[in-house]
Amino acid sequence: MIKRLGDSTLMFLEKPSIVGFASLVGKKEAQGPLKDDFDKIVYDMHLGQDTWEKAESALQREALSLALQKSQCSSKDVDYLFAGDLLNQCISSSYGLKDFEIPYLGQYGACSTMVQGLIMASVMVESKASHKSACVTSSHFCSAERQYRFPLDYGGQRPQSSQWTVTGAGCCILSDEDKKNAPKVFRATVGKIVDLGVNDQNNMGAAMAPAAADTLLRYFKDTSTIPSDYDMIYTGDLGKIGSKLMYDILDKEGFDISHNHKDCGVMIFKSDDIDVHSGGSGCGCCASVLCGHILKNVEKQKLKNILVMATGALLSPTSIQQNETIPSIAHLVNIVV
Amino acid sequence: MIKRLGDSTLMFLEKPSIVGFASLVGKKEAQGPLKDDFDKIVYDMHLGQDTWEKAESALQREALSLALQKSQCSSKDVDYLFAGDLLNQCISSSYGLKDFEIPYLGQYGACSTMVQGLIMASVMVESKASHKSACVTSSHFCSAERQYRFPLDYGGQRPQSSQWTVTGAGCCILSDEDKKNAPKVFRATVGKIVDLGVNDQNNMGAAMAPAAADTLLRYFKDTSTIPSDYDMIYTGDLGKIGSKLMYDILDKEGFDISHNHKDCGVMIFKSDDIDVHSGGSGCGCCASVLCGHILKNVEKQKLKNILVMATGALLSPTSIQQNETIPSIAHLVNIVV
Repeated sequence: MIKRLGDSTLMFLEKPSIVGFASLVGKKEAQGPLKDDFDKIVYDMHLGQDTWEKAESALQREALSLALQKSQCSSKDVDYLFAGDLLNQCISSSYGLKDFEIPYLGQYGACSTMVQGLIMASVMVESKASHKSACVTSSHFCSAERQYRFPLDYGGQRPQSSQWTVTGAGCCILSDEDKKNAPKVFRATVGKIVDLGVNDQNNMGAAMAPAAADTLLRYFKDTSTIPSDYDMIYTGDLGKIGSKLMYDILDKEGFDISHNHKDCGVMIFKSDDIDVHSGGSGCGCCASVLCGHILKNVEKQKLKNILVMATGALLSPTSIQQNETIPSIAHLVNIVV
Repeated sequence: MIKRLGDSTLMFLEKPSIVGFASLVGKKEAQGPLKDDFDKIVYDMHLGQDTWEKAESALQREALSLALQKSQCSSKDVDYLFAGDLLNQCISSSYGLKDFEIPYLGQYGACSTMVQGLIMASVMVESKASHKSACVTSSHFCSAERQYRFPLDYGGQRPQSSQWTVTGAGCCILSDEDKKNAPKVFRATVGKIVDLGVNDQNNMGAAMAPAAADTLLRYFKDTSTIPSDYDMIYTGDLGKIGSKLMYDILDKEGFDISHNHKDCGVMIFKSDDIDVHSGGSGCGCCASVLCGHILKNVEKQKLKNILVMATGALLSPTSIQQNETIPSIAHLVNIVV
């Protein structure tokens, strides 16, 4: 049963279980400190495909296959599949997942897609519309870079505020069975689009920080909880700059999360990697860290009550060329064990 | 309460009411036979904006505003907003709807987005996650043409199998209140991605027909109903060619829907309009015909039990350049009064 809390938070009384989850990343991500948490490392950035877009599709296919395997079920057992990505018309998902023949609901939340899918899959399971639902998303440095910024061989310099698109994918399978030690989705807050006028596409962290703060504040208000109630609060890909800006906004509202907050974009790469500047980004950033490092630690009960909030910048190269600002969004889930 | 029927159909026992709906279209669509059914006709294709993309955003903004007005509620009364469109990164929706401050869940189902949103909004209302949820989508000839095909001033000839992107938008507001005479969503079937190898982007009808047939057959099987049980079966934008191909596939399975089937893409334009070839297309096609002509006739009880199935081609210009085939999808709702 779903209960509404306050303005815009949902509580799932039966707590859908994440019965299977899987992540894979590229070689650069595997040089970071989370290497051992990923299920698979892809050393061939092409994944045997002849285009970067098809390589990204292969990441999604592999993430779903691994998650199905780990949850000991087949694609026939999954009622609904929520997926999306950053490529135009979300082709990584549609081409990557078409052969599974699972009823498909395409999502677009930019880099917030993983948590958006997790919320929708939880709603389907909790409302008894589904026994099992899956969510999957990905990003690939090479397909994103050439679509959003410059041709790969251009090799332009990037400002310190820019972020590096993670090559990776993650998948969760939600179920109504009460699996022992499985991470469970307890509460969720859907983001509102927030746009404070940032228009620098090389500073996505600054664009997304207000959306992240907005969602988190609404969640705390709706649930009457405070930051210290949680073992850890993870954000998707605010990066170093965006995280700092979010602290500033929260601080003005009397909330300090700096002691138990980590950002997946900051966590994923080596801290002395000079290329990544403010941190990682892309749908695959939050997805791979959540479905690798974070959920593994929940399963081991090292973390028992956490918040995961994926952030997304809802721009396009066209909107930037037209001098528009960058609307952003952040979706949040409370995961418990 | 949501009940699962058969393989993949949902039944909403309390039948969420469509308490408000609105549509608007451009001048070419207003020359067609459905003119009097639309709430608003936009004679300035720019809608006072300086780019086509911003004009499309204005369509969505206007559709939601009109639907809120018609349902006598404000944006604060709407708990969740499902929206999406055809533009890269779905910017018509994110930019068009950001000022409403409604928790936002971006959808991508190409031209099937209207029904996908309707299903998700119904799930939110029926599961008590929401009192009111809205769905909105749009397309604009000028923004779609230049993104998917050629610059507008190029003026290339188009084959007879091609379709004309509708300039229009539609919005529905779903509610848990039992409003008298309001159209209600009773059952829904989520589409699977189907790809039979069609790779001609000028023949979307052929690419989408197998997906439409697949969803419809699954629905009939899950509900143990037959075509003649319904006053009318509407498809989104199969066009003349796609509709014929769908009949052929259904015929082989023993179903004949030719007597009570209409396609929004065939209905919307003047039958002697030489530009539109196989018919209209775009997210705004099914959206404007549904939220104009169809739901008005349900409200007047001229139609009491109908199926509406929006079809979408999940390709991108990049996937076509890479010689990929066109995966397609079709989502279905059963609307009753």
